[in-house]
Amino acid sequence: MGRVTVRRRVLRVREGTASPRPDTLAAEEPMEIRVGGRPLTVTMRTPGDDFDLAAGFLVSEGVVHAADAVAAIRYCAGATADGGNTYNVVDVVLGRGVAPPDASLERNFYTTSSCGLCGKASLDAVRTQAAWSVAEDPLRVGPETLTALPDRLRAAQRVFDSTGGLHAAGLFSADGELLCLREDVGRHNAVDKVVGHALRSGLLPLRETVLMVSGRASFELVQKAVMAGIPVLAAVSAPSSLAVDLAAESGLTLIGFLRGASMNVYTGAGRLLPLPVS
Amino acid sequence: MGRVTVRRRVLRVREGTASPRPDTLAAEEPMEIRVGGRPLTVTMRTPGDDFDLAAGFLVSEGVVHAADAVAAIRYCAGATADGGNTYNVVDVVLGRGVAPPDASLERNFYTTSSCGLCGKASLDAVRTQAAWSVAEDPLRVGPETLTALPDRLRAAQRVFDSTGGLHAAGLFSADGELLCLREDVGRHNAVDKVVGHALRSGLLPLRETVLMVSGRASFELVQKAVMAGIPVLAAVSAPSSLAVDLAAESGLTLIGFLRGASMNVYTGAGRLLPLPVS
Repeated sequence: MGRVTVRRRVLRVREGTASPRPDTLAAEEPMEIRVGGRPLTVTMRTPGDDFDLAAGFLVSEGVVHAADAVAAIRYCAGATADGGNTYNVVDVVLGRGVAPPDASLERNFYTTSSCGLCGKASLDAVRTQAAWSVAEDPLRVGPETLTALPDRLRAAQRVFDSTGGLHAAGLFSADGELLCLREDVGRHNAVDKVVGHALRSGLLPLRETVLMVSGRASFELVQKAVMAGIPVLAAVSAPSSLAVDLAAESGLTLIGFLRGASMNVYTGAGRLLPLPVS
Repeated sequence: MGRVTVRRRVLRVREGTASPRPDTLAAEEPMEIRVGGRPLTVTMRTPGDDFDLAAGFLVSEGVVHAADAVAAIRYCAGATADGGNTYNVVDVVLGRGVAPPDASLERNFYTTSSCGLCGKASLDAVRTQAAWSVAEDPLRVGPETLTALPDRLRAAQRVFDSTGGLHAAGLFSADGELLCLREDVGRHNAVDKVVGHALRSGLLPLRETVLMVSGRASFELVQKAVMAGIPVLAAVSAPSSLAVDLAAESGLTLIGFLRGASMNVYTGAGRLLPLPVS
């Protein structure tokens, strides 16, 4: 467990010449999340912070939204042929009175009973499952605070520079202080680990915080921010159409292409402290 | 249908000054894949080439591996409340005698009945489900052919430059000719679209070809290459540990950090034409 990086031999080719050398790779292993012993999903993730990942996944899916909704989290034992623990199966015991997730949970966020499968239905599903609204969050943040985040995220990433293979998610306070950093081969997992850590620390909803991610902003990442009560999501790269639609409907501030002194503000520009508009 | 990009208003911030302008985003919509009318999975994808996506997904999962295994593919009608077609639900009718996928298909590639959930079990599952082997593929390719691929892929990408939000997957011949290009907000979808196009054209297994992807190389992408019979997978960014393990076990040549005149060869270096080794 906790194998965040792995060493392998690689043949490095530079200008037509090959040289063997050791290389550091981001570790990737499957992890199954069970709830009350029932298998719910399997995700390919980087080992480490597995309990946070399981808890955050359940927040994202609308199953839990307070620390006492989770009674216990543990590794299931005896999984391999020789009886060893792979530390790749995690069981979440829900608190008393918390309804277990639907077996067809994967589809819940994309379909509703009243409507066919479309972007609109996906937005509706998030709205009906969120435990709080980010629209009324009073956070105001200066552009110079936002433009400082990518460097802070990168500086705090312990693993990225050695493998180039990990996505990062960083939770920041309104004045740009890093509150929590998580890395994973899957960017959705990195966000779930941040959110799960917050849930287990009794910090949900994450009001007046900014979530910064190293890659693109998809529908799924906006969904995770909304479900955790985070009012601002900033990404190094581009958002998708449905990410922008969900951010607009939820009242979340969505920022893309946050690089150097530049950014694109797709929704919720009112949270940025007054900017001269040309 | 076919909404590959979407226009939205954005507030562009440059050096402390904001200006509103139109922006082009990569479209993202949910798509449900059904087999014989039964829902199998939902993926967030960029609309377009939806039948290729459905077919390629079924190749990746080991359900089909020849064109005649698919009798028909069609959009399901009447999905929205007002009776309109969302073009987001695709039904695949399998050919006579083709076994439908297991309802627990998502877990098939990660677990086997004999063993717990671990990387080794994930590798075993791919080996037992692949219809052919890439280990014996006679392809030999020169480093200068490989280093030309990123520019060719980028040049052929119609959408990337306008949105910055799409992953690309390009299938190339042994001499570097682009055979098929697909783009999607999900890199796994881009690969499934390439593979599905090949299946429906009767071209599987894709012997003596090179698949180039714009992002990182995960276990899942190596799995898709192996299941389609592609002997070489090249990525612009880093591979994960399990991607390298699966490539090594399958006899696939895995290349990462393919940029400029440089690359890292993680497995199957014998397929590269003789290189001076320092």
